[in-house]
Amino acid sequence: MESALDQRFGLNRRVTLPGPLKLDGGVLLSPLDIGYETYGTLAADGGNAILVCHALTGDQHVAGDHPVTGKPGWWTRMIGPGKPIDPARHFVICANVLGSCMGSSGPATINPATDKPWGMSFPVITIRDMVRAQAMLLDHLGVARLQAVVGGSMGGMQVLSWAATYPERVEAAVVLASTARHSAQNIAFHEVGRQAIMADPAWRGGEYYGATPPAAGLAVARMAAHITYLSEAGLTEKFGRRLQAREAKSFGFDADFQVESYLRHQGLTFSDRFDANAYLYITRALDYFDLAEEHGGVLANAFRDSKARFCIVSFDTDWLYPTRDSRAIVHALNAAGARASFVELSSPFGHDAFLLESPELNRVIDGFLRAGQ
Amino acid sequence: MESALDQRFGLNRRVTLPGPLKLDGGVLLSPLDIGYETYGTLAADGGNAILVCHALTGDQHVAGDHPVTGKPGWWTRMIGPGKPIDPARHFVICANVLGSCMGSSGPATINPATDKPWGMSFPVITIRDMVRAQAMLLDHLGVARLQAVVGGSMGGMQVLSWAATYPERVEAAVVLASTARHSAQNIAFHEVGRQAIMADPAWRGGEYYGATPPAAGLAVARMAAHITYLSEAGLTEKFGRRLQAREAKSFGFDADFQVESYLRHQGLTFSDRFDANAYLYITRALDYFDLAEEHGGVLANAFRDSKARFCIVSFDTDWLYPTRDSRAIVHALNAAGARASFVELSSPFGHDAFLLESPELNRVIDGFLRAGQ
Repeated sequence: MESALDQRFGLNRRVTLPGPLKLDGGVLLSPLDIGYETYGTLAADGGNAILVCHALTGDQHVAGDHPVTGKPGWWTRMIGPGKPIDPARHFVICANVLGSCMGSSGPATINPATDKPWGMSFPVITIRDMVRAQAMLLDHLGVARLQAVVGGSMGGMQVLSWAATYPERVEAAVVLASTARHSAQNIAFHEVGRQAIMADPAWRGGEYYGATPPAAGLAVARMAAHITYLSEAGLTEKFGRRLQAREAKSFGFDADFQVESYLRHQGLTFSDRFDANAYLYITRALDYFDLAEEHGGVLANAFRDSKARFCIVSFDTDWLYPTRDSRAIVHALNAAGARASFVELSSPFGHDAFLLESPELNRVIDGFLRAGQ
Repeated sequence: MESALDQRFGLNRRVTLPGPLKLDGGVLLSPLDIGYETYGTLAADGGNAILVCHALTGDQHVAGDHPVTGKPGWWTRMIGPGKPIDPARHFVICANVLGSCMGSSGPATINPATDKPWGMSFPVITIRDMVRAQAMLLDHLGVARLQAVVGGSMGGMQVLSWAATYPERVEAAVVLASTARHSAQNIAFHEVGRQAIMADPAWRGGEYYGATPPAAGLAVARMAAHITYLSEAGLTEKFGRRLQAREAKSFGFDADFQVESYLRHQGLTFSDRFDANAYLYITRALDYFDLAEEHGGVLANAFRDSKARFCIVSFDTDWLYPTRDSRAIVHALNAAGARASFVELSSPFGHDAFLLESPELNRVIDGFLRAGQ
């Protein structure tokens, strides 16, 4: 139930839309739950709406406290009073992506046709399907056009898909640490994670709801993925070969090195907060993502109808979606005659840099958003 | 049982040495099984012996056919008639490392004290322990000194440890695609693999011998590690986003992309041929490896007593043990006044390049070995 405070700030909301949503896989999904939050007020002319798109394991609690953990939103560095995205000026919307497990329809939600959780009978979805669901939410909220769509990593893929799918609705697009297509290596890492989940006997073909979830498999999946979010130099700086709170190696198999116990902790806490099937579905959507493929094999074609301004940002130590991936987007934008600005920022933190304190990133986004006004 | 052919060529041999071998962890191991192969004949002056050290999942069948699979040895590109290492000129020795599962003592062998497999009661070992075991084998074979010690990846670490531990026995050292210490990222990837194995209920604390082995966990471990052996560009060239033998995406969770089924195959075939506990022990030895730490924190100290010539080779697309790791070795060798040559070779194949066809690598090693004669 929403508290009075939640209602006032638009926190922790959930709407059931009738749909149907026609998915790329051909299935008609209906109805459609969407968990979302909003911050600020939509201007009378509707011109101040900013949609924020979250990453693989993110959620809609972008700037409000998380209802379960009580922790601040995951992007309060970017969104808040005096920040580049400011609810005093902007109407900010963030929705849990389709297929996830934080309030939107996904494998862990109830299939109304069977009154049981969907599990693996939930249809496979794409990044574009996530975007279509968000568009339905905006229709519901009375938001016709977006001053900007902003997102990093998988959020950036949604931003690109927004500009391609709803060119008339997007005035500006901010794509951080992202890519227009998943590479073979990206797919390979995700496949390791999926196999780890599916190899866990507790997974039971996805029908573990009400029973023990495949926590061990999901933890291994998270550990493998987590390494790709960090730079080698960042890991070395943070942990090096430092041992845990003991003087010498144990000559055993406990976590001797700090990096081992850090990774184990990442895996364990993740399986407490995330649904394993949702992880399968969202990684699949990421691996399927190839924006050029949806447009005749030519990435520039995706942007032919766009009137949006684009801001593309990469980080020099990001080896998951390295700068060359952002360059490919910028080349396509240039080829399509779109207005594109591009910057590679320096950071020791690898892919995760877009989520961390970065005055430079804030200046880039602030300047870009203000330039359109 | 050895065939007459095996006896003639020194193939597929196994010796039980009395030991004891004093391990870095403090345990005295006795007796000590070593599986090994030899090729060629030891010269009267004992001056033509070359020890080849294998990598994590390698074995002693370096140039002879594998007794089970019947496949040619794993390094016939480097060892054979007319090759840089030639049994017509060299007496070649390759031993299965301590802790492995191809004939040498390890967790899958019988603990004579209990008459049961060691399992996780096998002592944790180090790279230096592997080298000490090899030295005992050389004593048994009557090989006092080595014209060269040669190895790539974990084999290269053994080469470095040989030069540091037995400086009087090593005349030349060839270190390929290797490092003097495991980085935080290296440890992190191995920890994912270990957690995948230990999360498999079939692992049962390592006591799965005679029952079902943790094949699924070991397969996931192998998949994660395998990604690190290949370059991003190599993966893209080999697979890109190409689909399996079907026209379009399945919108399901079968292996849609070629890279997915390739990885799954790598995982499955590996768990057929390798022991999961051995994988735990050897990855632990790798993660413990820090040659400087064994020498007062200064890598150069490891080589102060060495009279050997060193040949260090890295590959430009190897991101597991990148060129900067080889540079650090060369800097230490220079600081120690050792004779060191260093080359970075270009290859699209990442870490695995040292195992693949490379006329350039063969020329480097051939020239280096001949220069000492």
